[in-house]
Amino acid sequence: MPSELENCMEGLIKVFHRYAKNGNLSRKDLRELMECELANFLRSQKDPGAVDKIMKDLDANGDGQVNFEEFVSLVVGLSIACEQCYQMHMKKGMK
Amino acid sequence: MPSELENCMEGLIKVFHRYAKNGNLSRKDLRELMECELANFLRSQKDPGAVDKIMKDLDANGDGQVNFEEFVSLVVGLSIACEQCYQMHMKKGMK
Repeated sequence: MPSELENCMEGLIKVFHRYAKNGNLSRKDLRELMECELANFLRSQKDPGAVDKIMKDLDANGDGQVNFEEFVSLVVGLSIACEQCYQMHMKKGMK
Repeated sequence: MPSELENCMEGLIKVFHRYAKNGNLSRKDLRELMECELANFLRSQKDPGAVDKIMKDLDANGDGQVNFEEFVSLVVGLSIACEQCYQMHMKKGMK
């Protein structure tokens, strides 16, 4: 049976390939992924151009698509931000 | 209800904090995490010193501990490697 961490990694791959129609995420694919999988985050951006900006940031090799490695850097950034909120929340809980 | 991707990110944070006794992973914590959460990967290394080498690689700021950001880089590396296997497997399946 896979461990929780193995399930998380498998989940990242499955989510990516659910939206990456041809193996990579086009702009349209990325928008769909974010609207479905990161709706809260997208809404918190309050910027209609947020997806385009994120696309530009993620598309490190400038091929107009986001491959898995580029996608994972988005997940890393969001996870690190969430973990810092988690730590602050834990510290507040201890006061 | 959280999306699958949000669950994956939450899972990374929960797994990290399950083993990071004082907020970061000591060498012992990392060994325990890997033996429980990445047993297959660890076994595939066939190197008794694998955990020590990984600890050295991950501990980017050299403080003898692995923080969440350093831990996530391990997850990224493994996910990218798994995803490449996934792609090869898919391509073989199409032949």
